[in-house]
Amino acid sequence: NDLFLFILLNIVFLPATSAIGESCHATKPNMLNVHLVPHTHDDVGWLKTVDQYYYGDRNDIQHAGVQYILDSVVDQLLKNPDRRFIYVETAFFYRWWKQQSSSMQQTVKQLVNEGRLEFVNGGWCMSDEATTHYSAVIDQMTMGLRFLNETFGPCGRPRVAWHIDPFGHAREHASMFAQMGYDGFFFGRLDYQDRARRMIDKEQELLWRASDSLTPPMADLFTGILPNGYNPPQGFCWDQSCDDPPIRDDPDLEDYNVDDVVNRFLTIASAQAAVYKTNHIIMTMGSDFQYENANLWYKNLDKLIHYVNAQQANGIKVNVLYSTPSCYLQELHRANLTWSLKTDDFFPYADDAHDFWTGYFTSRPALKRYERISNSNLQVTCNQLEVLGGPVSRNGHFGEGDSQTMMKAMAVAQHHDAVSGTEKQHVANDYARRLANGWQHCQVVVSNSLAALSGSSAQRIYCDNLNISVCPLTESSKKFSVNVYNPLARPVTWPVRLPVNGTAYTVSDAKGKAVDCQVSVVPVSRATQEVRRNWGFAVNELVFQVQAPPLGYSTYSVSLVKDGPPPTSTKYNASDGNNSQSDQPSGAYIFRPNSSTPFIISQTAKTETVQNSVVQEVRQWFAPWVSQVVRLYADSRALELEWTVGPLPIDDSLGKEVITRLDTSIKTSEIFYTDSNGREVLQRKKDFRPTWHLKQSEPIAGNYYPINSRAFIKDDVDQLTVVTDRSQGGGSIHNGSLEIMLHRRLLYDDVRGVGEPLNETSNIFPEGLVVRGRLLLSLDPPPTAADTHRPLAQEMVLQPLLTFTDGNLNPHTQLEVSEEGENDRFSGLQAALPPAVHLLTLTQWDKDSVLLRLEHQFQSWESKVNSQPVTINLQKLFSTLEVLGMSELNLSANQWKDEMIRFDWKPQTGTGHTHTYSVNLMTIWPTVLQITFILDYMYKLFPTDF
Amino acid sequence: NDLFLFILLNIVFLPATSAIGESCHATKPNMLNVHLVPHTHDDVGWLKTVDQYYYGDRNDIQHAGVQYILDSVVDQLLKNPDRRFIYVETAFFYRWWKQQSSSMQQTVKQLVNEGRLEFVNGGWCMSDEATTHYSAVIDQMTMGLRFLNETFGPCGRPRVAWHIDPFGHAREHASMFAQMGYDGFFFGRLDYQDRARRMIDKEQELLWRASDSLTPPMADLFTGILPNGYNPPQGFCWDQSCDDPPIRDDPDLEDYNVDDVVNRFLTIASAQAAVYKTNHIIMTMGSDFQYENANLWYKNLDKLIHYVNAQQANGIKVNVLYSTPSCYLQELHRANLTWSLKTDDFFPYADDAHDFWTGYFTSRPALKRYERISNSNLQVTCNQLEVLGGPVSRNGHFGEGDSQTMMKAMAVAQHHDAVSGTEKQHVANDYARRLANGWQHCQVVVSNSLAALSGSSAQRIYCDNLNISVCPLTESSKKFSVNVYNPLARPVTWPVRLPVNGTAYTVSDAKGKAVDCQVSVVPVSRATQEVRRNWGFAVNELVFQVQAPPLGYSTYSVSLVKDGPPPTSTKYNASDGNNSQSDQPSGAYIFRPNSSTPFIISQTAKTETVQNSVVQEVRQWFAPWVSQVVRLYADSRALELEWTVGPLPIDDSLGKEVITRLDTSIKTSEIFYTDSNGREVLQRKKDFRPTWHLKQSEPIAGNYYPINSRAFIKDDVDQLTVVTDRSQGGGSIHNGSLEIMLHRRLLYDDVRGVGEPLNETSNIFPEGLVVRGRLLLSLDPPPTAADTHRPLAQEMVLQPLLTFTDGNLNPHTQLEVSEEGENDRFSGLQAALPPAVHLLTLTQWDKDSVLLRLEHQFQSWESKVNSQPVTINLQKLFSTLEVLGMSELNLSANQWKDEMIRFDWKPQTGTGHTHTYSVNLMTIWPTVLQITFILDYMYKLFPTDF
Repeated sequence: NDLFLFILLNIVFLPATSAIGESCHATKPNMLNVHLVPHTHDDVGWLKTVDQYYYGDRNDIQHAGVQYILDSVVDQLLKNPDRRFIYVETAFFYRWWKQQSSSMQQTVKQLVNEGRLEFVNGGWCMSDEATTHYSAVIDQMTMGLRFLNETFGPCGRPRVAWHIDPFGHAREHASMFAQMGYDGFFFGRLDYQDRARRMIDKEQELLWRASDSLTPPMADLFTGILPNGYNPPQGFCWDQSCDDPPIRDDPDLEDYNVDDVVNRFLTIASAQAAVYKTNHIIMTMGSDFQYENANLWYKNLDKLIHYVNAQQANGIKVNVLYSTPSCYLQELHRANLTWSLKTDDFFPYADDAHDFWTGYFTSRPALKRYERISNSNLQVTCNQLEVLGGPVSRNGHFGEGDSQTMMKAMAVAQHHDAVSGTEKQHVANDYARRLANGWQHCQVVVSNSLAALSGSSAQRIYCDNLNISVCPLTESSKKFSVNVYNPLARPVTWPVRLPVNGTAYTVSDAKGKAVDCQVSVVPVSRATQEVRRNWGFAVNELVFQVQAPPLGYSTYSVSLVKDGPPPTSTKYNASDGNNSQSDQPSGAYIFRPNSSTPFIISQTAKTETVQNSVVQEVRQWFAPWVSQVVRLYADSRALELEWTVGPLPIDDSLGKEVITRLDTSIKTSEIFYTDSNGREVLQRKKDFRPTWHLKQSEPIAGNYYPINSRAFIKDDVDQLTVVTDRSQGGGSIHNGSLEIMLHRRLLYDDVRGVGEPLNETSNIFPEGLVVRGRLLLSLDPPPTAADTHRPLAQEMVLQPLLTFTDGNLNPHTQLEVSEEGENDRFSGLQAALPPAVHLLTLTQWDKDSVLLRLEHQFQSWESKVNSQPVTINLQKLFSTLEVLGMSELNLSANQWKDEMIRFDWKPQTGTGHTHTYSVNLMTIWPTVLQITFILDYMYKLFPTDF
Repeated sequence: NDLFLFILLNIVFLPATSAIGESCHATKPNMLNVHLVPHTHDDVGWLKTVDQYYYGDRNDIQHAGVQYILDSVVDQLLKNPDRRFIYVETAFFYRWWKQQSSSMQQTVKQLVNEGRLEFVNGGWCMSDEATTHYSAVIDQMTMGLRFLNETFGPCGRPRVAWHIDPFGHAREHASMFAQMGYDGFFFGRLDYQDRARRMIDKEQELLWRASDSLTPPMADLFTGILPNGYNPPQGFCWDQSCDDPPIRDDPDLEDYNVDDVVNRFLTIASAQAAVYKTNHIIMTMGSDFQYENANLWYKNLDKLIHYVNAQQANGIKVNVLYSTPSCYLQELHRANLTWSLKTDDFFPYADDAHDFWTGYFTSRPALKRYERISNSNLQVTCNQLEVLGGPVSRNGHFGEGDSQTMMKAMAVAQHHDAVSGTEKQHVANDYARRLANGWQHCQVVVSNSLAALSGSSAQRIYCDNLNISVCPLTESSKKFSVNVYNPLARPVTWPVRLPVNGTAYTVSDAKGKAVDCQVSVVPVSRATQEVRRNWGFAVNELVFQVQAPPLGYSTYSVSLVKDGPPPTSTKYNASDGNNSQSDQPSGAYIFRPNSSTPFIISQTAKTETVQNSVVQEVRQWFAPWVSQVVRLYADSRALELEWTVGPLPIDDSLGKEVITRLDTSIKTSEIFYTDSNGREVLQRKKDFRPTWHLKQSEPIAGNYYPINSRAFIKDDVDQLTVVTDRSQGGGSIHNGSLEIMLHRRLLYDDVRGVGEPLNETSNIFPEGLVVRGRLLLSLDPPPTAADTHRPLAQEMVLQPLLTFTDGNLNPHTQLEVSEEGENDRFSGLQAALPPAVHLLTLTQWDKDSVLLRLEHQFQSWESKVNSQPVTINLQKLFSTLEVLGMSELNLSANQWKDEMIRFDWKPQTGTGHTHTYSVNLMTIWPTVLQITFILDYMYKLFPTDF
């Protein structure tokens, strides 16, 4: 019958017969081939907002207008079929594309089909690698690549990942790129010592083995380090933003310079060829927001190619050609050489002895947290609840909602000057504004979906300020209910803290069973108190534990019964750039304390304790601007440190960088561990890099690494794991010690382009931003530590969503339900997934299909119990969806999995074999991420109105 | 026989059926029509050299590349047939055109034919008006317009003169433009008080009657003052060099601003309409070197037009359209109004109370002189001698020579940042280098021509440094001959001063007759002495008077017989911009002395006198850096003041502006007279402007006027006329006094863009430039003064050319001559022309035709004898050329005279009638300049080798 009819997918993936070979210019085997790659690097926000960059607004800040870049490049490509261009950031390309006429669109398609315009990378943005979470990176890549795929088909599929600007490179990014089917990866920034060594050893091109768990070559990625960052060689920048001399080839005019230009170019090409392996070299001919007037570039490049190649007649063995990264990569592949193998990552990044870009691991901690919460909201509300609630989610009782707004906002927030915190203040505000706007659109989806699932159209109220104990409803209502939606594929228990003004409440669960709850006084922090005064002011907090089923919700009722603070925080003073070794100050990018010994904010703290059946708390005040609550909930295996820092005082004219340091008796031998983009964990060692002999020049900043979700130290007996609620920087400077930077406020720009000191204030915090966050500490025996921290971190990333309804449900808006209380509890899964399996993505793909990603979240070595293959029956996964068919895709969902054929590269050590596995009854190996499906489905149960 | 065969002209002037009406966009009679005129203003040298500007070289100085502008504009015009563009400077357009493919050339022709690309002005450059000589202006206009005519035909003929940037406007320029057939004239700069008055009275558009002698409307020129200089209205600059917000019309992106843009535009348009007469207004949408990326401009202008005109549906009576100056002018003409009449000029130009642009009348006096000499050389050698010597002039015994190099160098030197002295030093050097290079090419023409005419191929030697008494030949040779070529159409007598080391010489003329000559000691100036020491060092000067026939030469032989200073100079100290009234310093543009009382350099002078049969001299030394020789030659009616000024001392950290002041007993009543571009004379009155009530704020600088060739003061009895050898600034500050600024050296930039103080040094003059010049003083009864100063100035402008040959002529290189001595004397005319008639131009036009310009050089009121019509028989003009046919043209030689039909405009006062006259037997009325012919000719006498 109809239920089992297999519905054809709307999106047709044409077989990706490679057009690269055909569109690449011929090279000359007996010559040095110089691949000129015209390109622009268009930040999706930095000194200007993404839309200001698109339109070319606020050119007083920076001259940059992407609409004109794309206009101009297309024009110039049409003038000479030899010319090539690559485009990277789909966030911009998408904006431009939808403003074009259909004839222009047709023209661009032709250029793409002929390989004259090539997309590289192709995500919505070029994501940051140090401060992003893999979940959001996959989403933003998927969004960009999906647009390219739907618009251009296989010729629009990028073959090359291109992260020319991010400030250091994460191994997990390389792993993801490999699983997205990229043939290679190019970047521009790496440690200056690392580069120097690689130049000597000709190891600027290498094979990166990006997972210690996945079977090679699953996570192998050919990686190339570009010769000049991403700029043209010196003297050959012909953009309107450059001053290099144009090629003056009219002998009738003064200063004919063709001979000079050709000689300079040959000298540079020869020097470059000396530090690379093959007789092919690449030159990036472009830079930030270049090609707004592409004629300047191409006119001179045409001449350069003409006049240099004319020297071949004089015996010069140099062949210059327009090229693209994929054409260049193809030649490297054809060279059939072996390449050095790298298994660690490219952090931290230093561009000089005292210039470690480790500050941005923590810069703008409030934005970093907001981005992380937004991801949680996006996954829950815009994605999962849209699927589970059916079409009525998008257009239902509460109006029209959508997920696109939030998805786009999240996608631009992944940019390497967004969540990284390295943008100007007004741009940071814009990212936050976009996320807030996205959330508004999502709330409609949530309300519609919950109405459909629960059968109640009661108004849903959202309390987005619970982190500062503000929620007007709970503060004033005598009776309200709390819906707790759990986005994880397993049941969760979660502490709920609600601001209230009463002194006694009763709480009951969906079955009407009483839940233990306690009221305590809200811990007072001077700064947050000031803010809360403007918004409302709850005296007390109601605390209780809630439980919610996998991919579902439960509802709790709250009724008023009666109207009625321990570790140490320290600080480094920030460098003002004024000491004898270097004048590099700390700034948005760079961390450089003026002393290696942190200042203790206070040896003693004022403390209060709270102890009841739900929670034990120690509330600590170290200074007016630093306080902390240490909490242990009943049954919890983790200790919670809720820190509140700010406004950082600057009346001594010194910037401040506040860390929290956990000193233990664990014998660390200078070794510690940090995660990569929230997934696999890498070992770190103080003053050590795995691939070169480090000369350490910054004892603190040079030992900081990004912490996206967790870090730990261990010895044979104990492992202390810290799970963070956002990306932060941290390190282990002393034996047994683990420090995490919480907040930073700086008075000098660090001269990397932002042009502003990182000195955050806002209307609400005119004296400096106050930031609050949580660290979860878990102390376990090392062999079982992952069994704790993996689920703990997951719960931190994908939080339950709380929604509220006031009073008793209005009987008139209640839908008919089959039995009492049934609609107060719902699960979208037939059963919880095994602990090792994480439901990473569940999102509407098109009308009749959803995108599903499952991952194995344990590394192969970290758990006896969980680091094992797990088998899942996809047909029996969902409680309300009938799966009619499924098709496996690459990780970024822009290619059928069985058509994902990547270049094979020979490492200098190690061999790989392809790992195969079947689909329907799905077995997932440890750390496997690439289980991405499109499922065709029908709703088989709720909502009732289908 | 063949001699009288009429040879067809190569250049075909198609009938100029106006395409303007067809190509202009329709306007709306019941609305305010806003004519948007996209344009670029491309200085032919200023901060960069002309070729640097063309190529976009040295963008570190200023971002500007004209090649890209033209590339870009053509591309963008093709994208939308509604778009318009005007181009002005043919020096650039020519460079670009010759680099284009024939298909691109065809495309551009199509754009021109359709009126989408319109040439305005069209001269080689946009000439300066204060410091140029009419002769060179006519030449540069002719060169540019000829190129356009030959390339594009009548559709390429500019209808509108366009001097948007020059710093004040000369009446003679207006007269010339009228005689070149322009229908109207637009400019941007005028005195700020003048503009204010005209805005109130709606007299920013007017009829300029540019001659007091020519019959109206012969020199009437409709003149429009542009609303914003030549810039776009505030907030509407969309060039890549501007920061104004683009039109953001995508409601999906942030900051949608269409409503705001439309409202701001309507407000501006309405304000502008209030100060103009018709329901048409013009907006210049562009500025300096804009449209390098024309897409930015046009994309936003397209939107502006679309969104503003969309408001017509809402009852807004504003119609915006792409337009050109000629389309706008056509609408003004159709309005059929009367226009206020102006008969004076627009000097001096002040843009604020203390900001009089009168310094540049004198800035760079050495360059100004070099330009004037170069014009003389060009007329003589590249033009006249090329014609008289026949084809062998261009390719003869001494190799290949050409006139184009010098013509182009002279043409760019007319630019308003060239001879004006308002360019950067390296650019001034480039102009001089071009002139020097042109002169090298010309010398070959001269040598070839004189060899052909004289029958002698003896080596011709050129002594270009006679002004500092350096000539290696005459200093060392015991026997040499001097060829004196006279470019005037009447015989001249001329003093020759040659540096020699002997103490006695004999000089004989072409007939062998002895000529009185005298040897005296070279007057010593410390600075020039230093220079001459490096080059040679003559102790003595040989002085004698030479005579030369009209348009011909005579030769003098010199043989060695025996081996062997009074007026006052004062100075103003230049303002350093630091006094209470204004911080405007003197600079290249602006004159602003720090006191109204000049400092007397010295009340007494060290003097020497020389008196002999040839000359009487008083040699005066006022200071080490100011000296003067006062000379009176036998039979001369003028007193010569040879001044030598420099290096101006700056050890007191004050700039210096050196004037010479002639104090007389003439009762001037604050009235004095200066010429306009070397032609008609205008009356000036201290602290007075004819068309508005002047509030004088700078008593000296505000009373300075340009002097191009002469100035005079007079009363009923006496007229003192000063003839200058270059353009200078001057005024009459006190009764009976006339002062002329000779040299200036300044230590501050005057903030008009040059970015350099006018502080000239050179390799030869590292301590500051030394400048030498001559003033000729003539004291006459007023009614006959012009009979003296007209020919005197003429001789100053077109000097005899001296060439030298060493020793006896070598007999082996002598050509056969019919009788002894005949070839030592030659005249190209059958007879001298009457004194009133000046042979302005005689130049090769093409292989079989020459361009001839005759002018009547007296104003209608200035001479009883000479201010009369004169009749010339053109058939009997030349001695060696047989005139086969002749055709009269407009002044710029780009249109047949009888096809020159200009718009007729109604002045508010006065009426005009067309003046007609016949051709063959040519009668020339006083001040008439427009007698321009192409003559078809054959050589009938010499050279013998035809």
